[in-house]
Amino acid sequence: METIPFNIPVEEARTLLLDTVAQLGTENVLLEEALGRVAAVEIVAREDIPSFDRSPLDGYALRSSDLAGASASTPVTLQVQEEVPAGYTAKEAVKEGFAVKICTGAPIPQGADAVVKFEETEFTATQVTFFKEVKPDSNIVRRGSDISQGRTIIKPGKVLDPADLGLLAGLGYPELPVFRKPKVILFSTGDELVPVDEPLRPGKIRNSSAYLLKGILEKNGCSVTLGGIVKDSLEELMAALEGALDQADIVMTTGGVSVGDYDYTPKAFEQIGARVLFWKTKLKPGMATVAAVKKEKLIIGLSGNPSAAAAGLYRAVMPAIYKLSGRESLDPAEMTVTFLEPFGKSSPGGRVLPGRLVFRDGKTCIQIQSKQENGMVSNWGGCNVLALVERGRGPIEAGETCRAVYLGG
Amino acid sequence: METIPFNIPVEEARTLLLDTVAQLGTENVLLEEALGRVAAVEIVAREDIPSFDRSPLDGYALRSSDLAGASASTPVTLQVQEEVPAGYTAKEAVKEGFAVKICTGAPIPQGADAVVKFEETEFTATQVTFFKEVKPDSNIVRRGSDISQGRTIIKPGKVLDPADLGLLAGLGYPELPVFRKPKVILFSTGDELVPVDEPLRPGKIRNSSAYLLKGILEKNGCSVTLGGIVKDSLEELMAALEGALDQADIVMTTGGVSVGDYDYTPKAFEQIGARVLFWKTKLKPGMATVAAVKKEKLIIGLSGNPSAAAAGLYRAVMPAIYKLSGRESLDPAEMTVTFLEPFGKSSPGGRVLPGRLVFRDGKTCIQIQSKQENGMVSNWGGCNVLALVERGRGPIEAGETCRAVYLGG
Repeated sequence: METIPFNIPVEEARTLLLDTVAQLGTENVLLEEALGRVAAVEIVAREDIPSFDRSPLDGYALRSSDLAGASASTPVTLQVQEEVPAGYTAKEAVKEGFAVKICTGAPIPQGADAVVKFEETEFTATQVTFFKEVKPDSNIVRRGSDISQGRTIIKPGKVLDPADLGLLAGLGYPELPVFRKPKVILFSTGDELVPVDEPLRPGKIRNSSAYLLKGILEKNGCSVTLGGIVKDSLEELMAALEGALDQADIVMTTGGVSVGDYDYTPKAFEQIGARVLFWKTKLKPGMATVAAVKKEKLIIGLSGNPSAAAAGLYRAVMPAIYKLSGRESLDPAEMTVTFLEPFGKSSPGGRVLPGRLVFRDGKTCIQIQSKQENGMVSNWGGCNVLALVERGRGPIEAGETCRAVYLGG
Repeated sequence: METIPFNIPVEEARTLLLDTVAQLGTENVLLEEALGRVAAVEIVAREDIPSFDRSPLDGYALRSSDLAGASASTPVTLQVQEEVPAGYTAKEAVKEGFAVKICTGAPIPQGADAVVKFEETEFTATQVTFFKEVKPDSNIVRRGSDISQGRTIIKPGKVLDPADLGLLAGLGYPELPVFRKPKVILFSTGDELVPVDEPLRPGKIRNSSAYLLKGILEKNGCSVTLGGIVKDSLEELMAALEGALDQADIVMTTGGVSVGDYDYTPKAFEQIGARVLFWKTKLKPGMATVAAVKKEKLIIGLSGNPSAAAAGLYRAVMPAIYKLSGRESLDPAEMTVTFLEPFGKSSPGGRVLPGRLVFRDGKTCIQIQSKQENGMVSNWGGCNVLALVERGRGPIEAGETCRAVYLGG
């Protein structure tokens, strides 16, 4: 495997993967089921929202000129011409000397240029009295003031949020095209693994990485199937990979990616005829990552250590998953975080540290677990931010800052 | 309705609702489907993770005393006693003068008190040579270093994240009890509304609030059914509410909560025999909120204006939904945000402003749309933070700060 990029910076791994993948196909979903899906088309407003000038309150629509000179001592009384509930329109334009009783959300009648709150009037069924002047344009929500026709409301690659759904509903889209969710099949390799529902035997551990990774992938829009545990056997792993390639967009494994005698993963990728993109990165944790491609499907080997696997997934692989997913934005937002607790280890080769955002005194702080080992899961608890500790940095004191990426949630 | 609390501070509305609701029942879910669900029991680690001392790397396990005096010029050679792959255990304790070849994740053999990386040795199948001393405890991951037996790993009310799933898997929980998701049925009232798949007619608007609110409720762990559009008719609304009460934990409506002639919602709540908790709050937007309870089900009337409905939902109602959901933490984290853009309106009665967190220069900033009207949807785009503008505050300049709550995502 001498021509394979080996032990490369994680940024190069990210680029190699990004250069390899293309967006998945699209499917139509009902608007009711579109939350969190990735829009596959641009949506331009084909109407104004609202589509007419409307009243934001219950009151009287009138010609502001009719109230010229109105005051507490010289009130002005107008005749009530008609009443317009929300959902209906006035029969005719407002005449001089008349006012139209209007409900919240109803269209402003022709001729009217202002609305006065009913609480500021005295009224009967036929007459209404005003005690001050009103400026033209008062209490009128203009057509197109929420969304104006021709405005781009959704760009392809946008992850749809509740407001997007509201706008799409307002513009009359009962369904829309979105990108397919990436289907991931995840195998766990290692003779040390037992399934979650079996008792431990000496030397064995339960398969926790699979559940951690499945959770991370689902949070990031993937549909994940756990393929189960595969023994440390080249043949078994090859068979598992080949079977999964036809059913998934991404086949992922954990374990067997080191250079030990039982580390069959890179070999299995090669022997099923996949093109290996890289093997190992300089990322700590997460060095033991291998990536390959066959039939335009990604094959990703992550570390058998949960914390290392999660780091490799986020930093090397996730941008490619986002590209597959059709997302416009492939990298998380960068930020600066302040450490709330010290971190005792040095980071000669750089390091990522999972943590939780805490807001304190207007600063974005990171709360981390002091113990951080490749094999741990607990240090990822509540993780919504990754600190990116630069190469060569020593132990970190509380109050020091660091670059970080925001993972959301 | 004179005894009903009317036009109350939103904090009182929040408390009235919280005092009324109790946690929903529980159900078992498979660990594979538990992401984002709310744990219903405390889970205490019944084992250590890992459950044995293990090697974090491929190398040789030995007695550190055997390498006393080892150096580049005076190397020490030990006999290879046996080999332990991950998942297996050594046949016997390490003898003086011997080393056990050990793989990443394999248990440390009895007698060994250190592991040396294979890269730092020279070895054959039967012998291994070391060129420096090793301190006791080197390269040993101790039993219980991730999770120690007896530690509480999940508290009831915890929203399960990927790391929780990993830990539960590691401890052997293939399923666990979680709280039921609150079932919400949401009706949209108003003669002005047409369904999303119908053309607009004069004076009509499409039902966008329902989709905005459904998205917000789903993001917050509810299961939501859209009940459709109900005409401005007391009888129709009463029939809809009564039919829904048997199928939902929360029946929600939009529209008809003002004091206008067509505002039937509070009346409908009373006439179906629900106990009305409050009507109207001082929150802007979101004043028009009414809440009632019948047969221990919540009945919530939100504004017909999308932005006002969303504000009322988040600030008055969401804590009660979280309590129903079994969540431990009922309120979002408070923070201070810096405005990136000015906001021109005064806030005599206080105000909530939806926005998006932006991280700049280590500060948490809020990006808002300059136009903010009760009837808008677009101002909620990308919203993951709500600024809480205090009562009596004037226009806000860019660079000024404000209290806010973080909504996640």
